[in-house]
Amino acid sequence: MQFQLTKEYLNELRQAIRENNESFVKTQLHELYPADIAEILDELDLEEAQYLYRHLEKEEAAEVLMQMEEDMRERFLSALSSEQIARTFIDNLDSDDAADLISELPESKKEEVISHIEDAEQASDIVDLLTYPEDTAGGLMAKELIKANINWSVFKCITEVRAQAEEIDNVYTVYVVDDNNVLMGFLPLKKLLLVPTKTKVREIYNPDIISVKATMKSEEVANVMEKYDLVVLPVVDEQGRLLGRITIDDVVDVIKEEADKDYQLLSGISENVESSDSVWIITRARLPWLLIALLGGIIGSQIISIYEPQIQIHPEMAFFMPLIAAMGGNVGVQSSALIVQALANNSIDTKEILPKLWKEVSIGLINGIVCSSALLAYNLFFNHTFALSITVSVALVTVILFAALFGTFVPLALNKYKIDPALATGPFITTTNDIIGLFIYFMIGRLMYGIF
Amino acid sequence: MQFQLTKEYLNELRQAIRENNESFVKTQLHELYPADIAEILDELDLEEAQYLYRHLEKEEAAEVLMQMEEDMRERFLSALSSEQIARTFIDNLDSDDAADLISELPESKKEEVISHIEDAEQASDIVDLLTYPEDTAGGLMAKELIKANINWSVFKCITEVRAQAEEIDNVYTVYVVDDNNVLMGFLPLKKLLLVPTKTKVREIYNPDIISVKATMKSEEVANVMEKYDLVVLPVVDEQGRLLGRITIDDVVDVIKEEADKDYQLLSGISENVESSDSVWIITRARLPWLLIALLGGIIGSQIISIYEPQIQIHPEMAFFMPLIAAMGGNVGVQSSALIVQALANNSIDTKEILPKLWKEVSIGLINGIVCSSALLAYNLFFNHTFALSITVSVALVTVILFAALFGTFVPLALNKYKIDPALATGPFITTTNDIIGLFIYFMIGRLMYGIF
Repeated sequence: MQFQLTKEYLNELRQAIRENNESFVKTQLHELYPADIAEILDELDLEEAQYLYRHLEKEEAAEVLMQMEEDMRERFLSALSSEQIARTFIDNLDSDDAADLISELPESKKEEVISHIEDAEQASDIVDLLTYPEDTAGGLMAKELIKANINWSVFKCITEVRAQAEEIDNVYTVYVVDDNNVLMGFLPLKKLLLVPTKTKVREIYNPDIISVKATMKSEEVANVMEKYDLVVLPVVDEQGRLLGRITIDDVVDVIKEEADKDYQLLSGISENVESSDSVWIITRARLPWLLIALLGGIIGSQIISIYEPQIQIHPEMAFFMPLIAAMGGNVGVQSSALIVQALANNSIDTKEILPKLWKEVSIGLINGIVCSSALLAYNLFFNHTFALSITVSVALVTVILFAALFGTFVPLALNKYKIDPALATGPFITTTNDIIGLFIYFMIGRLMYGIF
Repeated sequence: MQFQLTKEYLNELRQAIRENNESFVKTQLHELYPADIAEILDELDLEEAQYLYRHLEKEEAAEVLMQMEEDMRERFLSALSSEQIARTFIDNLDSDDAADLISELPESKKEEVISHIEDAEQASDIVDLLTYPEDTAGGLMAKELIKANINWSVFKCITEVRAQAEEIDNVYTVYVVDDNNVLMGFLPLKKLLLVPTKTKVREIYNPDIISVKATMKSEEVANVMEKYDLVVLPVVDEQGRLLGRITIDDVVDVIKEEADKDYQLLSGISENVESSDSVWIITRARLPWLLIALLGGIIGSQIISIYEPQIQIHPEMAFFMPLIAAMGGNVGVQSSALIVQALANNSIDTKEILPKLWKEVSIGLINGIVCSSALLAYNLFFNHTFALSITVSVALVTVILFAALFGTFVPLALNKYKIDPALATGPFITTTNDIIGLFIYFMIGRLMYGIF
């Protein structure tokens, strides 16, 4: 029942396209879901894809287009006139997808496409949706929804719902509004089947409704839908008037994108790339962080060179430089990752920085003492000098403590100044910890070798 | 309209609990959603929470319980008898939540609680659901759904839907089955409002339905729902008979958990912890990886000690050890993170390991050459010896190449042997790369100092 795209299947399809085997192509397309067709198109050459595409029905073609990868979609659209885009796609899409599609077009083409939309209501909905920033509730919402006036009877309500529902694919809920279009509550669709038709909407609607303002950030919208387990969420303006609704599938995309972005920053990748992207795109995403790490390494080398005389007297000090640097880096990443995750899940009170730091000190102290003790035992057992053994262990506790505090503080500080805290988890924290760790190490070394 | 838990609010509530101000507490509880109440309970002491909890209505109490954090829920339940648990919670929950709740109970209490469930159908549904592993479609599904026989008329269908719907909160879809309960398709609820009541279900149902087998892994279920933008997904057995349905809110939790787990592994945290967990729990999650990194550092120190004579002659070689180690670690993490993400998104053909490695070689070569050239320029400009400059740069390219290959290969290999590939992204890759990087560095150093 599930479709699995294989190389064999792709070859078979390519063969059919080359041979212009229309009946085979049509049968295949008929059996597949839009998401599967989009997956196939992403793998084909532009010409092959266009051949396949011409054999799709209009409504399905629009859906397939929305599921394709952005670069393939762009190439597709650039071959079409504004009128074709409007008639083939925009007229057959929900308002939110239509607005997304138009916002991807080059500036010059946008107005042209809009001017060719046949359905006047769709055109005005799209123009309206385009005014909201992409990463807000307004940017996520669609205009298609079913609403009932609070003063209607259930009979009138069912008649109206019938009329409205024919244009709307997925009906989850009937929204109840007053004469000024202010959202009052909702009416589960099943209720309409359960009560006598003379009942007033006012008597049976549920006023307990969660809604969000159009200006709310999409991450927050995701948090609200997740927390309250919602499938659809109405969007209102500042006066509480019903503007549109957001469905969970759009929010799932937001959740995935946010998680992917944070994951990539943590791994030192600066753009949203996929392993299937071109060598050039992936290189461009990876090189910046590597250059930052390189710069950090160069600064580190300068710090070490300051202590060259010390290394010449005690070359064994060099043995543990990578260990100290690595431990500092690891602890720093652990600390900042926990904070970034807590901020993303909204499960942290950002006013409480001091208790957080204090907690990190405790954790850092425990981890530091355990690791340092193990290292001390190792060093003494393997007959390293007492001065070296004590230097390495004291430096390790200090570096771990510092890295834990620094790793906690930086994302909280970034968040305070409205900068994405996930930026802290990239090589920035690791690199800084490397440098400062080496510095601490040699300072303590100088001190200890003076004493012992 | 959105609730925001503040310290002030919490204090006010605590005050009211201490003063036994029942009217205040009741008003507050009445105004809040279960998810908000659960959030408050998580912040209170057990006794305060129990006080609040006693003032909830039964049905709401069950919902609040499901939204609480697991450890608080456990403490709550351990204070109750099996009968109380069955009557207060199990009878008021959907079958999937009820089964989850029971699966969290200690072994001894499970059967006792089940024996106290009043609704025989609910009890048998739960026993049935408990047979499915937690991380499969069966473990995610609920038994509550509305189905219609394909031979019914719409009139009969509406009557039956009315009867079935009273017990079910969220009705999304009516499933259509044949006489053997085999899933045939679905009927959008709105369709029942739109067609004449004499129509047969057979004439109007939609046979294009995506379903999954009960044995499918929950990550795969999430991928299916995401790909096809589904809100609810029917689950069938091997013979295609309808067993239950999965709703998107449960899958959102799966997506979040998967993303969180991968994120934590990448940051070197071994258990699923939150920044609000206790110092002890967080330490336990962080220490194992630190000890692995420590072990790596110790092995690294032994490798360096082998080359001690070389360092004594050329102490400047020590300057760039941390740089080499750090760059190897960063490149390795980048490579493995991309693979882990691609595997999680199901966007990679795991048979194609060789082309992947080849691509990584290209990316590694470009990044390596850019970084090495920059470093060479720096070193020559700052009058380091030619031998050192060339050693560091050649070693850097080599280490970057190796790290890229190693970072790509390990998660692919783990995945092949059914081990979670995300394990590769922890300190394991970084640490191994550190060690091998140092080894490469000194080998090349010995070679270059011999030549120049």
